[in-house]
Amino acid sequence: MIKHNYLNNIPLQEAAETFYEKLEEAGMAHKSELIESAGAHGRVTATAVYAKASSPHYNAAAMDGIALKASQTFGACETNPIKLKAGDYFVVDTGDKMPDDTDCVVMTEDLVESEDGQFLLFSAAVPWQHVRQIGEDICAGDMLMPSFTKITPALAGALLAGGVLEVEVATTPLVGIIPTGDEIVSPRENPKAGEIIEFNSVILSGMLKEWGARAKTYPIAADKPALIEDSINKASQECDMVLIIAGSSAGREDYTAGAIKNTGELILHGLAIRPGKPAVLGHRGPVALIGIPGYPVSAMLVMEKLVKGALAKLTKESYPQAIVLEAKAARKITSSLKYREFVRAGISFSGHEPVAVPLDSGAGLITSMTKARAIIDIEQNTEGYETGDVLKAELLQPLEKLKNTLVVTGSHDPLIDEVFDIFRRSGKGFDLASSHTGSMGAIMALKAGQAHTGGIHLLDTKSGEYNISYIKKYFPRGGIVLIEGVGRTQGIMTAPGNPLGIKSFTDLANHSYINRQGGSGTRILCDYLIRQEGLDSSKIYGYEREEFTHTGVAALIAAGSADAGLGIYSAAKLYGLGFIPVAEEFYDFICLEENLEDEKIQAFIASLQSSDFKTRLEKLGGYSLKNPGSIKFRF
Amino acid sequence: MIKHNYLNNIPLQEAAETFYEKLEEAGMAHKSELIESAGAHGRVTATAVYAKASSPHYNAAAMDGIALKASQTFGACETNPIKLKAGDYFVVDTGDKMPDDTDCVVMTEDLVESEDGQFLLFSAAVPWQHVRQIGEDICAGDMLMPSFTKITPALAGALLAGGVLEVEVATTPLVGIIPTGDEIVSPRENPKAGEIIEFNSVILSGMLKEWGARAKTYPIAADKPALIEDSINKASQECDMVLIIAGSSAGREDYTAGAIKNTGELILHGLAIRPGKPAVLGHRGPVALIGIPGYPVSAMLVMEKLVKGALAKLTKESYPQAIVLEAKAARKITSSLKYREFVRAGISFSGHEPVAVPLDSGAGLITSMTKARAIIDIEQNTEGYETGDVLKAELLQPLEKLKNTLVVTGSHDPLIDEVFDIFRRSGKGFDLASSHTGSMGAIMALKAGQAHTGGIHLLDTKSGEYNISYIKKYFPRGGIVLIEGVGRTQGIMTAPGNPLGIKSFTDLANHSYINRQGGSGTRILCDYLIRQEGLDSSKIYGYEREEFTHTGVAALIAAGSADAGLGIYSAAKLYGLGFIPVAEEFYDFICLEENLEDEKIQAFIASLQSSDFKTRLEKLGGYSLKNPGSIKFRF
Repeated sequence: MIKHNYLNNIPLQEAAETFYEKLEEAGMAHKSELIESAGAHGRVTATAVYAKASSPHYNAAAMDGIALKASQTFGACETNPIKLKAGDYFVVDTGDKMPDDTDCVVMTEDLVESEDGQFLLFSAAVPWQHVRQIGEDICAGDMLMPSFTKITPALAGALLAGGVLEVEVATTPLVGIIPTGDEIVSPRENPKAGEIIEFNSVILSGMLKEWGARAKTYPIAADKPALIEDSINKASQECDMVLIIAGSSAGREDYTAGAIKNTGELILHGLAIRPGKPAVLGHRGPVALIGIPGYPVSAMLVMEKLVKGALAKLTKESYPQAIVLEAKAARKITSSLKYREFVRAGISFSGHEPVAVPLDSGAGLITSMTKARAIIDIEQNTEGYETGDVLKAELLQPLEKLKNTLVVTGSHDPLIDEVFDIFRRSGKGFDLASSHTGSMGAIMALKAGQAHTGGIHLLDTKSGEYNISYIKKYFPRGGIVLIEGVGRTQGIMTAPGNPLGIKSFTDLANHSYINRQGGSGTRILCDYLIRQEGLDSSKIYGYEREEFTHTGVAALIAAGSADAGLGIYSAAKLYGLGFIPVAEEFYDFICLEENLEDEKIQAFIASLQSSDFKTRLEKLGGYSLKNPGSIKFRF
Repeated sequence: MIKHNYLNNIPLQEAAETFYEKLEEAGMAHKSELIESAGAHGRVTATAVYAKASSPHYNAAAMDGIALKASQTFGACETNPIKLKAGDYFVVDTGDKMPDDTDCVVMTEDLVESEDGQFLLFSAAVPWQHVRQIGEDICAGDMLMPSFTKITPALAGALLAGGVLEVEVATTPLVGIIPTGDEIVSPRENPKAGEIIEFNSVILSGMLKEWGARAKTYPIAADKPALIEDSINKASQECDMVLIIAGSSAGREDYTAGAIKNTGELILHGLAIRPGKPAVLGHRGPVALIGIPGYPVSAMLVMEKLVKGALAKLTKESYPQAIVLEAKAARKITSSLKYREFVRAGISFSGHEPVAVPLDSGAGLITSMTKARAIIDIEQNTEGYETGDVLKAELLQPLEKLKNTLVVTGSHDPLIDEVFDIFRRSGKGFDLASSHTGSMGAIMALKAGQAHTGGIHLLDTKSGEYNISYIKKYFPRGGIVLIEGVGRTQGIMTAPGNPLGIKSFTDLANHSYINRQGGSGTRILCDYLIRQEGLDSSKIYGYEREEFTHTGVAALIAAGSADAGLGIYSAAKLYGLGFIPVAEEFYDFICLEENLEDEKIQAFIASLQSSDFKTRLEKLGGYSLKNPGSIKFRF
């Protein structure tokens, strides 16, 4: 009933070489076309381009002044100026053709008018002074640029200056994209359960556009071999390359490899990389056929590591290499010996050296790409990195931008995103990268130099005080500052209107709970409240089911996947949930004292102090503000 | 008769701040529009964007296998497997909705079929294992991206995943470009003397496009104030910003500043920068009016240093900063105290540290931008750099690309460009940067670590031998390799058909000569031949008129601007000139022995050895090849 396909496990380098070789044998090559040079910016030359005309194409005055024959001025000096009569010279402006039998220009500034209205020259002119001679910029016949050169704005100008009105460029290749899958639907409002929004084609199109190709997305093909094959047949006639999204794995309904085999030639199925393993490489004549895994991160990696190289044969572009940064591993990164792994990571410049913080999320999450700042490439047959190892991270953003990024990690609150937006709108040019690692995560990250700041709301269950006892404990040697954040209300979130009539944790015994992860301030609060009510957490169904954010918990309750969970009011309000307040807490920020004067931290503090911040939090609801951004405690 | 305007001399920073402030006061700001997210790649968000839906929006199987309630499996172990009957579970594929009352997936791989066709489970499942829960990727209400974020392919995917089908983005601004000048004509074949091809608008359009704007070029306005004002009036009603090219200086026919004053508000005229001094800044309501100097390099600098910043207010893009490289000055770079100067430079990684080689050419030459690899920014009130000073060079190309560039300097020969094209077509990924400094320039550059290789053809007038005695003299401690180049024919170039009947230098006394620069091999040859014929060079008219390339000399003779000049056959052939052979010479390449194994040098040698090289040189004409690329002499 359940059938297995078996995938190859070919090393990436080997797969790419085999693939590119086969494509070349099959005749995959760029085409070229003649286009107007005036519109050639951004295109790539298909041949060397030679100037057809010289620039300037005539001897031209390079200054405003008078043109004359230099020999007329020989002998002029301070004591014996030469007087020029009308007819001896021609008044010229910059760019004017040099009149016949003249070979120099005397600048307006060097002319002295005599009493009788004629010019006196107090020094001799040098032949060809202030003359732009023919070919000074470009000589006809000079090579303006070699083959396969991307035409910059300046090069487009040089083409026209050199009399090249039309230029032969590589044709922009057309890449067909075929999304497949019974469950896949085009983007829409309110998709049904089981319907998956097809957005990979938009990601792929964008990447192709950035690489100088055009993309054509075909209708979604259902999981029927005949339909997929029809679509490949059509697309491979219309396009220079065809990408088939999904159906490339080894499941029951994975037909991509078979469809490629039936419509063209299958080269291989399965790469020794993760993510991206279930890629399919083939071709139909000179048209590459590539099965792209359906998980967006896998798809993007296969695009980057295989499609881009094949596309370069058509676009003839030399794509810039990623900048590689040496950074310390924030924690152990394990990798299977069997695969070359590409680990998404954040990058922090908060400490004395850059740190790469691997992101946990899976290849199915597009946000794991939008949040990543770098890719750590772990070679096959290696085991990964230990905490503190120096590794090489391929940057996804310019280095300068990463250095200007405030890294915030710790307890989740939507207010951090609002601060990010205040940052952007203030025009200060700083970025903000946030991740949700819980309050204890913030403390650990700051101790290890992995973040500039982080939110904490840690209840000292003995004193009832928030945050201070924790930082005293975890930073025994001090050097830490507690920046006042906000007061906020925690409560039990329930379905809208609280249909189960939940009043406290005691009422949860027979319902399904959704919890927050260990180490989060909310989990600590939850564990404490449970103990206070004398409850046994193992009796609460779903107590071990963990989410990382308040909105994550709220979303599951809103969908009916859980009955209750602890979280902040703003999350409950966002989803229109029932909310039973259980605690008022202090949500503050910590920062190392040595970083306090960092302009990004100062901008963060200024954002907390801004009236915009107050307005936004009032809108979110459930917050109380006293002096956000003030120093609450310094230790 | 000749009128003077006087320009301001405002420091760049001050000018920019004043300008941007005035523009903001006048209401210059981005507009926004709602567009489909599927086409939003590359656009910039105008507001923060929040997810409208969670992704996944239902609990979904994350593996192919069976879905069931985890509690059904509790207690299963190796010795006591649990048997599942039909009806106990649901077969699911990855992405399927989890059936009601199920909370986990057991992977196909973990299922064992019993003899009676039913499944056996040998271990208990954990609730929610292999389930992609609602909101795992994105929770409704989460901020997907803040304001003013450029939408990457992944972010476009995230928009659709988060149910955001339309997104508010900054409207792409429209920038009007008005070329001005009586002498300016649109690109055409065979322009007349005095007509200047208008190509600045193409350069500006390209730059604007790269910065996320659209450009509209208006018809060329002649140098009449009323015409220029009409055009500004029209453009400022249709566009968000208007650039007026040329007429911004202080000459007789420079009307741009006046036209801006008459149509809007003139803020300032004249910046303390070079090139770029005669810029004009103004506005008409919220529409910036900018007078762009007519020299292309000046124009590009004003675009980069002033227009880009103003444009950012409309596009809301954060343009990446240039990478700054610390490099040694190849020679003294002087700068006026009065101006902040931007010096175009080449960059060489041929020695032990990167070297910046300032380019001599003026702001009127577009090739000075196409050849530049970096800009050296010399602050106002500083005097520049001494040879060997460490300076900061803003790179115009990625660092990696510069490191992969073979730097060739020395004697000019068109064959070097052919080698560059062979490089490009070989697909090796190396670039080549060449400059023409003459044979002695090659020797000096190699001694100073400023180039990988260079062509020399230096005649030892005592022995009649080429090149070897020179490298012995200038590299007394050795470490130098002479790579065989080509034999080539030097001769006197004359107008086509040699109408003056020139046979030797003796015949030149009454004609106009065009010479090569001191230090070039051709000049050394010329001086030698003149002496041999017993001539007095001061009697040859134009002997002090110097060009830097063979094609430069040929172009002037072809245009009738000079009667004769010494040069190689291929240049004469290119222009169809008369040619009287006077010498056969050896044109070889030198390279430091320590660089011989550099892969770029090896690629260069391989190119010289290629059959393609032979074919190309046969086509150029006047060359004889024995063993190009072989080691001729090692010292």
